[in-house]
Amino acid sequence: MQRKSFEKMQCPIARSLERVGEWWSILILRDAIRGMTRFDEFQKNLQIAPNILTRRLTALVEAGLLERRLYCEKPPRYEYIITPRGRDFRPILLSLQAWGNKHFAPEGASVMLIDLSTGLPADPILVDRVTGKPITDATHANAAGPAAGPGVQRRLGKPRKTPAISQDGTP
Amino acid sequence: MQRKSFEKMQCPIARSLERVGEWWSILILRDAIRGMTRFDEFQKNLQIAPNILTRRLTALVEAGLLERRLYCEKPPRYEYIITPRGRDFRPILLSLQAWGNKHFAPEGASVMLIDLSTGLPADPILVDRVTGKPITDATHANAAGPAAGPGVQRRLGKPRKTPAISQDGTP
Repeated sequence: MQRKSFEKMQCPIARSLERVGEWWSILILRDAIRGMTRFDEFQKNLQIAPNILTRRLTALVEAGLLERRLYCEKPPRYEYIITPRGRDFRPILLSLQAWGNKHFAPEGASVMLIDLSTGLPADPILVDRVTGKPITDATHANAAGPAAGPGVQRRLGKPRKTPAISQDGTP
Repeated sequence: MQRKSFEKMQCPIARSLERVGEWWSILILRDAIRGMTRFDEFQKNLQIAPNILTRRLTALVEAGLLERRLYCEKPPRYEYIITPRGRDFRPILLSLQAWGNKHFAPEGASVMLIDLSTGLPADPILVDRVTGKPITDATHANAAGPAAGPGVQRRLGKPRKTPAISQDGTP
């Protein structure tokens, strides 16, 4: 599938979407984070056409999310290892999972996150690493960052430096 | 674009992806969460073909993520309001944004999340709402939930009840 490129949009969400390419890519990342590495494993688990899988794996390697390694010389066989950048995608997968469990699993959760030290279900929420405060609509919002162009500035105001210029809540 | 349905996969991630449909849907949700409601606004901001926008809006309404409301009777005009279920998608957008800023914004952040009470940048991370513990590969993992079918059980073991049967760390 060819679609419009989001590459030029000055939006970190659009840029992330550009890299993960399409749904298959997200499910491949999910499986790679779980420890899957081989073409046949991905293919069997996802029931995906081999030519599409090849294309998606190549794109994920080019985006630096998977690393391709030769594991057999004769015949040449490659495996695909999740990179640190790819592993950083896990919070997005866990957020998607929590959202899916909350809204689209009327029969109950089939897969759930647990705390390994207690065996109890965990309920993932976003907090600010710096302050520990939960991130809500009332407490946190987007602002223009140091690299904001004219379009972002029209929407979000003058760019802030990092750390922000003001510390008293005024923009 | 028609693609394989993920509907039947017993995976909350695949089910979430089924609902948000494709990249456009995520960007429409992003704009709706920001307060956009009208067809023309979405169209202008996303530079999306009207027929595709109509299709994506309809799918988001059907999935319960947007609500369609008549705001003008003559001629009939509709607006699209984010629902609570749609608003619950925000942590996924914020996680995508943080990932994009970290890995795909070499010139610095154009958009960043700030704490409204201090004006300082926030760094969103996932923690368990119950314990407050950060969610990491070492501390949290997926387990079969109460509705797990045979496929999930083969991968993740016997299903757990909610709350989990064991509280001492053994599965």
